[in-house]
Amino acid sequence: MTIQSVAIIGLGLLGGSIGRAVKEFAPTITTTGYDADPAVRETARTLGLVNTVCNSAGEAVSAADLVILCVPVGAMQAATQGFASDLRDDAIISDVGSSKQSVAQDLAAALPNHTIIPAHPVAGTEQSGPQAGFATLFQGRWCILTPPADVDPAAVDALSEFWRALGSRIEIMEPEHHDLVLAVTSHIPHLIAFTIVGTASDLEDVTRGEVIKYSAGGFRDFTRIAASDPVMWRDVFLHNKGAVLEMLGRFTEDLTALQRAIRSGDGDTLFELFDRTRSIRRRIIEEGQDDERPDFGRDH
Amino acid sequence: MTIQSVAIIGLGLLGGSIGRAVKEFAPTITTTGYDADPAVRETARTLGLVNTVCNSAGEAVSAADLVILCVPVGAMQAATQGFASDLRDDAIISDVGSSKQSVAQDLAAALPNHTIIPAHPVAGTEQSGPQAGFATLFQGRWCILTPPADVDPAAVDALSEFWRALGSRIEIMEPEHHDLVLAVTSHIPHLIAFTIVGTASDLEDVTRGEVIKYSAGGFRDFTRIAASDPVMWRDVFLHNKGAVLEMLGRFTEDLTALQRAIRSGDGDTLFELFDRTRSIRRRIIEEGQDDERPDFGRDH
Repeated sequence: MTIQSVAIIGLGLLGGSIGRAVKEFAPTITTTGYDADPAVRETARTLGLVNTVCNSAGEAVSAADLVILCVPVGAMQAATQGFASDLRDDAIISDVGSSKQSVAQDLAAALPNHTIIPAHPVAGTEQSGPQAGFATLFQGRWCILTPPADVDPAAVDALSEFWRALGSRIEIMEPEHHDLVLAVTSHIPHLIAFTIVGTASDLEDVTRGEVIKYSAGGFRDFTRIAASDPVMWRDVFLHNKGAVLEMLGRFTEDLTALQRAIRSGDGDTLFELFDRTRSIRRRIIEEGQDDERPDFGRDH
Repeated sequence: MTIQSVAIIGLGLLGGSIGRAVKEFAPTITTTGYDADPAVRETARTLGLVNTVCNSAGEAVSAADLVILCVPVGAMQAATQGFASDLRDDAIISDVGSSKQSVAQDLAAALPNHTIIPAHPVAGTEQSGPQAGFATLFQGRWCILTPPADVDPAAVDALSEFWRALGSRIEIMEPEHHDLVLAVTSHIPHLIAFTIVGTASDLEDVTRGEVIKYSAGGFRDFTRIAASDPVMWRDVFLHNKGAVLEMLGRFTEDLTALQRAIRSGDGDTLFELFDRTRSIRRRIIEEGQDDERPDFGRDH
């Protein structure tokens, strides 16, 4: 089983990047695409994100080996209603959502007779929309597949091969474990960033102009991920509630311990943590998961 | 009054960058330097960070118009003891520390008869040491001066002119206000980053390898600032305790409100915040305080 045609439902940052990546790295695969927003479809046509931008989801999926839903995780079920009756019987249905238990449930309920393999390419930027994508977004990044236990292994292999062609590295995981891992590596960092940017903009004794002027002290890093798509992130927190609340509890416990150390002047506790966290950065760089240049390679 | 010679005490990221910046942008100013660590002095000589690397702080400051302390804020008082008796009577004493009330107190106590103008260039990277600096670190960044009320205005002008020559923009501020502003734009972001990186590395149900592999989901951003110098940051939290605890209280209140919104499924509250935080990012970019390229311009 090899993917020869893919339908991309949702042509934002992720959908558009998949289209561009197929064109660049797997040009023998034909691509169709659909977006519920007519303006996005028009932009996608102008940019040539896929071979054919269709005016209905049904038309986009009708000949596809693989359908990838690139919509917010709260919109999965509604999106499938637009094409469920047009799917080929042997089509593989996948997605790019950031929570996997909810997607597995929603897709299984909507398409009980199809091969469903939820997936999550751990890649993105703070930008969104059809013009934000690029072909190399997935190079060297991990794509996590969470296949149900009873799924055809050949379909998992075909989907893995597809993502490898786009530059990804593949990992297979239980959906529950995915949701826990991503809560700590992605969802809590985003929640914290949204929070501190909100806190800073609501202060009365520090002006917003001051927050912006002196953001190079560290704050500006947080504003990048706090500029991410608000609908996508609202849906992530609502659909991965359990793991997010669990990890948030651990984070606030640790923060409270540091607060106590600061209040009591316990420099040793602070130093011990700050010294230890450096090694994590080194490993991320060694494993090719971040730019090794200082300050992410920002212009100076 | 114009600065013609500057002594740099402490030749790490900041001290080394000042030396390099003077050489490139204000080459008529002569520079001397000293670091308590003989290995750092040796590296500074090899790299030519200043015109003369001296073997004592006293020798470094003896002819200087301006002495800049580039040491952790907890080491200010001890560092001045090494050169207090060698200072010229008319020398200006300044620093680059991240907390200004504590520095003002420490320097005034150690050098009661000198012109002291605490300063804080809001610039840096996550790297440290004499090899980490570069001449353009201060270009377009703000340098905050917190002169005491009774200081000679000509000295403030001379110090401002010095920093402008290195590419900085100047702001004058009360030390109390500086400490509050920087708590939110720098100290709390660092504290949060150190905390979440620590939380992630201590988990039992998610391995450290997984945290590293999937760090591109947002976590890797936090690891950058959590790789910053541990002694410097320990001292910042111990010396700006009041403002840090005040701002931390506001952050945790806001985080608790979001936690409640997630638990109760209140998507509107989440969306409203996430939508609002985008505008802060736009203003930071418009005001030249961050790289406008997606993902900070990281390699993709």
